[in-house]
Amino acid sequence: MSAWEWLSARDVLLGDGECAEGSVWEAASLAGIKQLNNLVAIVDVNRLGQSEPTAFGHDLDTYKRRFEAFGWRTEEIDGHDIEEVLEVLAAVGLGSQPLVILAKTYKGAGISFIQDKEGWHGKPLSKDEAARAIAELQPGAKSGIGAPIPAPSQLPAPDNQAPAAFPPINYKLGDAVATREAFGNALLRLGDADKRIVALDGDTKNSTYSEKFAKKFPERFTECFIAEQNMVGVATGFSTRGKVPIASTFACFLTRAFDQIRVAGISTANVKLAGSHVGVSIGEDGPSQMGLEDLAMMRSVVGSVVLYPADAVAAEKLVEQMLLHKGVSYLRTSRPKTPVIYPVSEQFPIGGAKVVRQAAGDKVTIVAAGVTLYEAIKAADILKNQGVGVTIIDAYSIKPLGSDVIRTAAQATNNVVVTVEDHYAEGGLGDAVAGELSATGIKVHKLAVRGLPRSGKPEELLAKFEIDSDAIVRKVNSLA
Amino acid sequence: MSAWEWLSARDVLLGDGECAEGSVWEAASLAGIKQLNNLVAIVDVNRLGQSEPTAFGHDLDTYKRRFEAFGWRTEEIDGHDIEEVLEVLAAVGLGSQPLVILAKTYKGAGISFIQDKEGWHGKPLSKDEAARAIAELQPGAKSGIGAPIPAPSQLPAPDNQAPAAFPPINYKLGDAVATREAFGNALLRLGDADKRIVALDGDTKNSTYSEKFAKKFPERFTECFIAEQNMVGVATGFSTRGKVPIASTFACFLTRAFDQIRVAGISTANVKLAGSHVGVSIGEDGPSQMGLEDLAMMRSVVGSVVLYPADAVAAEKLVEQMLLHKGVSYLRTSRPKTPVIYPVSEQFPIGGAKVVRQAAGDKVTIVAAGVTLYEAIKAADILKNQGVGVTIIDAYSIKPLGSDVIRTAAQATNNVVVTVEDHYAEGGLGDAVAGELSATGIKVHKLAVRGLPRSGKPEELLAKFEIDSDAIVRKVNSLA
Repeated sequence: MSAWEWLSARDVLLGDGECAEGSVWEAASLAGIKQLNNLVAIVDVNRLGQSEPTAFGHDLDTYKRRFEAFGWRTEEIDGHDIEEVLEVLAAVGLGSQPLVILAKTYKGAGISFIQDKEGWHGKPLSKDEAARAIAELQPGAKSGIGAPIPAPSQLPAPDNQAPAAFPPINYKLGDAVATREAFGNALLRLGDADKRIVALDGDTKNSTYSEKFAKKFPERFTECFIAEQNMVGVATGFSTRGKVPIASTFACFLTRAFDQIRVAGISTANVKLAGSHVGVSIGEDGPSQMGLEDLAMMRSVVGSVVLYPADAVAAEKLVEQMLLHKGVSYLRTSRPKTPVIYPVSEQFPIGGAKVVRQAAGDKVTIVAAGVTLYEAIKAADILKNQGVGVTIIDAYSIKPLGSDVIRTAAQATNNVVVTVEDHYAEGGLGDAVAGELSATGIKVHKLAVRGLPRSGKPEELLAKFEIDSDAIVRKVNSLA
Repeated sequence: MSAWEWLSARDVLLGDGECAEGSVWEAASLAGIKQLNNLVAIVDVNRLGQSEPTAFGHDLDTYKRRFEAFGWRTEEIDGHDIEEVLEVLAAVGLGSQPLVILAKTYKGAGISFIQDKEGWHGKPLSKDEAARAIAELQPGAKSGIGAPIPAPSQLPAPDNQAPAAFPPINYKLGDAVATREAFGNALLRLGDADKRIVALDGDTKNSTYSEKFAKKFPERFTECFIAEQNMVGVATGFSTRGKVPIASTFACFLTRAFDQIRVAGISTANVKLAGSHVGVSIGEDGPSQMGLEDLAMMRSVVGSVVLYPADAVAAEKLVEQMLLHKGVSYLRTSRPKTPVIYPVSEQFPIGGAKVVRQAAGDKVTIVAAGVTLYEAIKAADILKNQGVGVTIIDAYSIKPLGSDVIRTAAQATNNVVVTVEDHYAEGGLGDAVAGELSATGIKVHKLAVRGLPRSGKPEELLAKFEIDSDAIVRKVNSLA
């Protein structure tokens, strides 16, 4: 069966003003394509927005033409006639199309001084007004109110067991694998073991490597096309059914869905996101394609977990961690191939950090993640030849941050830390480290992307924005 | 004339895959409502997305029905027939509707091994393949290619002079005015003096107070309805014509438009945003309506300016600063009324900060902004009675941060700073201060919203999330 059957037989209530929102049409389009004939949307066409009448007032035909063009069956009704509402709801499932019920209503119906009038949106009534309103409503209350609405048909019970163990990972130290590809490998590896996984993508599956899962488990993959708001909405829907949705696209395109991600956080939904092609290290494609704001965005989501693997082993293990964790989680992956530096036995708990290099007498602690971890290692080699030792921390868990590991390391290097990240200077790794550790007297020096990147080779851009090994060497030498 | 005439006669190129994006339909809807009959969109219907065929392939009728339902005139053409392209472009301006040209094309047309085939998106050709492709294209090159396309009709020159001076502000110390209302007052005050201003809102103008401008200058106001992505897109369009667009809505709803804001930053567009109803201080409406991530989002936009007034004078002066500054700027305003604490002569340069209280022997520097500034002042009074002096800084410029003022103050309080903000702990004021100042050895203790707020009275929520005066007192006492 298709994973979509787990989502069927659902009612959606829409405001008419809300239908100006593009996400409504993203959702409407996919519902039409998927022929979700058990989906019913009721549009409350009361003609009044918050601040003025909607553009289309009570012109139900406009909504009708739009929904029909998006593949829906339509019914126009008097929204105050409960009998009519029940009648059209009973006709759910006819044909192959989702159904939209366009309900003509009056805001504040039945209250003479409010009905169909502007200026009442979100406004509480005074005691007197409330008394008048109740008095006016009492005689007109229809017997139909309170009539039972048929329950949606029973859905099959999905297999929502978390796996007891995960299949093994196979990489050798030194293998060159992009973390985005390791993400795809992880989905493929875990798909059989964890039947809860459903994957979604926004027409980038050949770049995010979610296509590996899509090919093996087509019934559990949803191509959402280029509609990221709806992709996150659909993922949230799957999570309410006990599934573990993993939605992937370029990190920068997830900014399209920030409101949906934010609300998933508020709803404590179990939604997993994977953003690829982060930072200037993507190279030639330029700034519109570079995820340089994603850490700031995802850190600010309430209750979120933000993970950022440097190598393939970390990426695979962090996908496992995401499956075991309940809540909005984000995996940040990179475009370039990077060598495997961790043995497959390494563990990557959420909230941890790895001490990659450390020796007595180290002068500075470098906190890096993703591609900058390799720059830090190169820098450490150069600095070693200059007689300067540095500690290196892999901050693979950006939120919650592995603060204890970083603090302990920093205290051994005279409380001096350099952070280096392929992200803008605001809201990313450097701010996370400074925000969590500066209270303890740790001095945090941030290397990050400052200014607008253009197209260029990854190594040129890392150098230009001073987040490469040479920049780290210069910064450490200025401090040590 | 309507401000919209400055935007007319523009061509837009759309991909067919891109038409899955909700922002396309937000824009299409408003263009239909505005009857922009000089707007021409050309949809390149090549049927291939990045990772698989689009949902509708070469079915031009689906696109036709959708655009027609959104108020557009449609023409279906062979996109490879340049004569036909020129012919339909010549018919721009007929009738009252915008025109969409649905151009059936083949991706890689004319190259036998690429045309209409999957797997070539964004893929460079090898040297051999390029030679073959050029050889195949040469004989078929049509003479129509290179034919001049008629230039769009000349637009009237708008009045784009920045004003030499601004009209005076009128508030008395102690007046209770919400900063959101002061924002509206500023728009109204400045509208005559600065003809470049155009205002936009997303059906919240009665809450953001942009309605003050809308009523006086209706021809320069655009109701974008509930479609924030398009609102920011329209604002960016106005900025390319030398206007200064100011788009307002609830701060939380701007997250809908994060990609458009991000791209405005990349484009160095002169777009001004105002987000109201921030933080838990909005009270009863609950977390979905609370802007608690907006500072993180707006700080991460490249080249952005982020401003956060505490009182009406600061709000009015910061609107002036936004008008004088070129680039993406954000004004964060609050729902509750707060007393005016600054004289109307006070200046608020971008990148500055105000020392609100300071005395020799102060133990801690408190950095606050917006509603928390008042909590800090209350806390200072309590602490004074306990014999503990504190310095208070109003960090009205979050980005660029008034670092020098904060650093100097902090150095006089033994390098101990407490930040307090009505925003999540990630990416906001505390991270900004820690990220910029911890390198100099300043210890930053963050008070911020941690955890998911629910509905409640503003003062209850400020207390629960430990950003009120009592929480500040407790924190200072733990440090002093």
